[in-house]
Amino acid sequence: MRSRHPKVLQALAGRPLLAHVLERVAALDAAACHVVVGHEQKRVRAAFADSPQALTWVDQGEPRGTGHAVFRALEAIPDGARVLVTYGDVPRIPIADLVACADGDGVTVLAARVVDPSGYGRLILDSSGQLERIVEDKEASARERAVDLINTGVLAAPAGELRRWLAACEPRVTGPREWYLTDVVAAARADGCAVGVVESGDAAAVLGVNDREQLAVQERLYQAALGAGMMREGLGLADPARLDVRGVLTFGRDCQIDVNVVIEGTVTLSDDVYIGPGCVLRDCDIGSGTQIAAHSVLEGVRVHADARIGPFARLRPGTELGTGARVGNFVEIKNATLGAGAKANHLTYVGDARVGAGANLGAGTITCNYDGAKKHRTEIGERAFIGSNTALVAPIRIGDDATVGAGSTLSDDVEAGALALTRARARTIRDWPRPKKSGNDKEK
Amino acid sequence: MRSRHPKVLQALAGRPLLAHVLERVAALDAAACHVVVGHEQKRVRAAFADSPQALTWVDQGEPRGTGHAVFRALEAIPDGARVLVTYGDVPRIPIADLVACADGDGVTVLAARVVDPSGYGRLILDSSGQLERIVEDKEASARERAVDLINTGVLAAPAGELRRWLAACEPRVTGPREWYLTDVVAAARADGCAVGVVESGDAAAVLGVNDREQLAVQERLYQAALGAGMMREGLGLADPARLDVRGVLTFGRDCQIDVNVVIEGTVTLSDDVYIGPGCVLRDCDIGSGTQIAAHSVLEGVRVHADARIGPFARLRPGTELGTGARVGNFVEIKNATLGAGAKANHLTYVGDARVGAGANLGAGTITCNYDGAKKHRTEIGERAFIGSNTALVAPIRIGDDATVGAGSTLSDDVEAGALALTRARARTIRDWPRPKKSGNDKEK
Amino acid sequence: MRSRHPKVLQALAGRPLLAHVLERVAALDAAACHVVVGHEQKRVRAAFADSPQALTWVDQGEPRGTGHAVFRALEAIPDGARVLVTYGDVPRIPIADLVACADGDGVTVLAARVVDPSGYGRLILDSSGQLERIVEDKEASARERAVDLINTGVLAAPAGELRRWLAACEPRVTGPREWYLTDVVAAARADGCAVGVVESGDAAAVLGVNDREQLAVQERLYQAALGAGMMREGLGLADPARLDVRGVLTFGRDCQIDVNVVIEGTVTLSDDVYIGPGCVLRDCDIGSGTQIAAHSVLEGVRVHADARIGPFARLRPGTELGTGARVGNFVEIKNATLGAGAKANHLTYVGDARVGAGANLGAGTITCNYDGAKKHRTEIGERAFIGSNTALVAPIRIGDDATVGAGSTLSDDVEAGALALTRARARTIRDWPRPKKSGNDKEK
Repeated sequence: MRSRHPKVLQALAGRPLLAHVLERVAALDAAACHVVVGHEQKRVRAAFADSPQALTWVDQGEPRGTGHAVFRALEAIPDGARVLVTYGDVPRIPIADLVACADGDGVTVLAARVVDPSGYGRLILDSSGQLERIVEDKEASARERAVDLINTGVLAAPAGELRRWLAACEPRVTGPREWYLTDVVAAARADGCAVGVVESGDAAAVLGVNDREQLAVQERLYQAALGAGMMREGLGLADPARLDVRGVLTFGRDCQIDVNVVIEGTVTLSDDVYIGPGCVLRDCDIGSGTQIAAHSVLEGVRVHADARIGPFARLRPGTELGTGARVGNFVEIKNATLGAGAKANHLTYVGDARVGAGANLGAGTITCNYDGAKKHRTEIGERAFIGSNTALVAPIRIGDDATVGAGSTLSDDVEAGALALTRARARTIRDWPRPKKSGNDKEK
Repeated sequence: MRSRHPKVLQALAGRPLLAHVLERVAALDAAACHVVVGHEQKRVRAAFADSPQALTWVDQGEPRGTGHAVFRALEAIPDGARVLVTYGDVPRIPIADLVACADGDGVTVLAARVVDPSGYGRLILDSSGQLERIVEDKEASARERAVDLINTGVLAAPAGELRRWLAACEPRVTGPREWYLTDVVAAARADGCAVGVVESGDAAAVLGVNDREQLAVQERLYQAALGAGMMREGLGLADPARLDVRGVLTFGRDCQIDVNVVIEGTVTLSDDVYIGPGCVLRDCDIGSGTQIAAHSVLEGVRVHADARIGPFARLRPGTELGTGARVGNFVEIKNATLGAGAKANHLTYVGDARVGAGANLGAGTITCNYDGAKKHRTEIGERAFIGSNTALVAPIRIGDDATVGAGSTLSDDVEAGALALTRARARTIRDWPRPKKSGNDKEK
Repeated sequence: MRSRHPKVLQALAGRPLLAHVLERVAALDAAACHVVVGHEQKRVRAAFADSPQALTWVDQGEPRGTGHAVFRALEAIPDGARVLVTYGDVPRIPIADLVACADGDGVTVLAARVVDPSGYGRLILDSSGQLERIVEDKEASARERAVDLINTGVLAAPAGELRRWLAACEPRVTGPREWYLTDVVAAARADGCAVGVVESGDAAAVLGVNDREQLAVQERLYQAALGAGMMREGLGLADPARLDVRGVLTFGRDCQIDVNVVIEGTVTLSDDVYIGPGCVLRDCDIGSGTQIAAHSVLEGVRVHADARIGPFARLRPGTELGTGARVGNFVEIKNATLGAGAKANHLTYVGDARVGAGANLGAGTITCNYDGAKKHRTEIGERAFIGSNTALVAPIRIGDDATVGAGSTLSDDVEAGALALTRARARTIRDWPRPKKSGNDKEK
């Protein structure tokens, strides 16, 4: 990957490759899940320290190949168990393929049929459809090279026998020869054990990620599959190739997502939600009928029904918008609640505040929530009207139905129904000689 | 579609599927256009209530299949007419295919040659190239299944005969058996009528939309065809796969559209217009030489020549920009005119205003157009200079060549050539002990 | 191209087609580079007036075909030289192909093997693999039409012989017959000269750009190849199909670029840089660990390590951000330096300024740098705190550790450690009768 980070921690759809594999393995309801780690294992284990999944970490020690890795994991596995081996860099391995291998008898190898098998080990079947052997690409004859059924490396086998076969396969000579898991096929056959093959239903999904190009390919395949599934569930997508979901997106009926939207974390859309082009949503809960216009960025936000948001709205964690609230362009809100029908339509910053239902914040309203040391709260009453270009120095309370005149800076509370403003007297100088441009002044 | 809305009202390129079909049918200059509707017909008819096209709506009543639908439509069609049947969910049906069917003799069936015909009815031709019969997929023999010429459902026939054939085909038995239009093929042949086949020039365009995946596929094909056509007309596109036109885009010479632009409604570009990445334009008229930088959103805007707009400009309905005007980042304008060479470069809201030629609005200029009940107008004279962070409380007039000092809030008119400002006296407290952070204060 | 601009000046990846060709030719280290120009040659030559490459411009005069163009160029080329002919509209011609032709003996023709050869001249080889002749598409027999090895037009030959062959091929008859370079193949063979063929390793790269569709195709292929190469070098891309690099992008380890980023000019990323969706960067140098959030637009910017930028930041030329600086949403900075850890988090304009380390600019801070004629500078000291909605009228200096109260407009310097503010006294009117909406007032 040309990276300083372990490969299995590289992100696909916002999560480590290994997280995808473990999620799929969890669906098998296995008795135990052993994860063999070697290089950078501390970082890998730390990344899953909070995982609710019961994982047994196995330190491979000196890396001596796949056979060795499995042999190490077998130390803690009883003879009677059935072992399924899969890989941390195959994030899209179909659960159905894993199940089919796990449900097999004897040794079961997962195969894939590909257009270009070059570079892969070929599966040579006997006349009964059992696996006769796996031929490495470089050792294959011309006839074998034409075989398009390749070895994915995924395999299931009975634990006791696998241990015995692997022990027998251990290369005794020191040197570059690795201890291959595939060697157990010959051992199993010699033992009279059935060696079956399961052909994957999705050949592109069983291939490993070995570089950033393959990672990008898997990312697109992941997103395409996710998008197709969501469309089948009734989600409208302007362009499935231009949606990125890095987490979990749930949705009601007749939602529509426009081009180039990015979804991160857990995002829930109720019915009839529209998300405009270029929006980024992370950890949001969006009420029915809400429309989010182009290029809005929302994180940690709860929106009730029928709100109108954006374009160019920035809603940060702790924002809650009431029913029918409106947040317009160049407005930032964080840790604040807007009541039903409240409006902040332009060029406004609302932080650490509660804005009552029906209140209207004029263009350029700023809640001055930070004094350089502490944050303070702003409380704005219902139906209050804050004139444009106004600074409200928190802590401050503006009463219900109060009005603040445009251009004011207020640091004291305003009682309900009152008008408050600060306004210096206007001065005028007639025929004022404005500074003149000299030849080399550039325009702003 | 898993939607609560009728399928034929689902949007392709911003318009209902049915609108696309009717537009193509209109090109045929037919004597009449009968639209058979059943489920949710009120909503469908309402969506076309304002259509200038003469449409005869036919209530199918109980849905009994395509044969039944056509039979109902025939009630109002005279015997001598030639009837062309097409479908509300085939939005990209080529006009040339419709014409070829309409111009045919006897019965003319539109066929398509596809790579994977499974699931479709196959057209079995006789040695003279006439259609012998249509075999349903599930009733096809192995040899018939290999036929890659499929039935699109589109068909033309003489009205009187069609009525007679359909009446003869009506299934008498109650039950799940539908009344198929395709049954007329056998009836026509039995009648000695010619039954010809027209092969579509664009197989992907004659397939119906049955789910959201197919809708997304048709959307992309529609946009690709539109983009290719516009490139042939001389439009420069950075990436045809990342342009969405939902309406009508016209353009002059040497215009260039960057990636991820969305065009809605009617948008006209004169010569040498550049539209930057991520822009959204709806119902705009853009003058020659104008450049619109990244992530600008324009709706209902008229721009004269050589303007510079964006990035992050938001121009709302009723905005008109004069020649060479400049609107910069985080600026919103609505229902306002900027004269030639006028500038609003940053963080500004201009609403319900007229800004004279050559005027300059400083950063943070806000027209306070709304008093909580009514909108008022702001008039700014030619070459006026509005200092930064200024609130102009409308109704207000700033004269030609007038200057407004930075940080002012003005509610009275300023005469031409004058300087006006509001500025409270500055107070200073030396060695002021700013609030100190305690250990658990978080930063803003 | 349906353009008023010369084809070879049309842009691929932000540079003229011809610039791409000349760059590749430069890699050959040839003795001289002759560029034959005809139509609009003044504009073409002007576009390369500042090129460091030594170019000999050749005026073709009346355009009489490729043979004529080469014949004109040969006037200044000595007999002993080897001449390589390539084309200004083949911007992705592989250098390896050019080298292979240049290194050949006698006449060497560059060929490509394509899926659909129709329209192209076919290369007919003799049994020894030498080129027997080139057959034009319309003159080809059925057997020749099936040949999928086409002529790219690229060719190398000894200068003296080429001159002689071309002179012999000149069409004597007036009329539409052009003077083709390909005619030299027969002349060379008649002369007993070897005529070899080099098959291109990248058939899509050797095809010329003749219209805007082909230009768009080449743009995507260029970007795909560039993206793949950068991924191999360790750059992480969320979607290689949605990155546009129009210039030179260099990067350190573990950088990640999200979807729909546009890179222009020369952009350098140090290690661990993240660039969010929709960002546009032109001529930037970004320090390690810096994160740029969605929809930020940066041009001519230098950023030190660990800065946090965006979303919706606009950084213009002359901006320099110190280590750990933060620039948030709806903030514009130009020609200004922010010291280490300084913050401008919201709705701010900083122009022609120096902001000290650790200073904090509140929401709505505006440096009023322009008086309508000249620009003036703002100097803000270390750890200074500028309250929200404040206008600083330049020239002005705010001292270290100084504080400016919210809502102030200051035009005088503030000494270190002091608090300065302008604040008009607040007035309050109890039970103020706010204007009431009449029935037909529309909301803002």
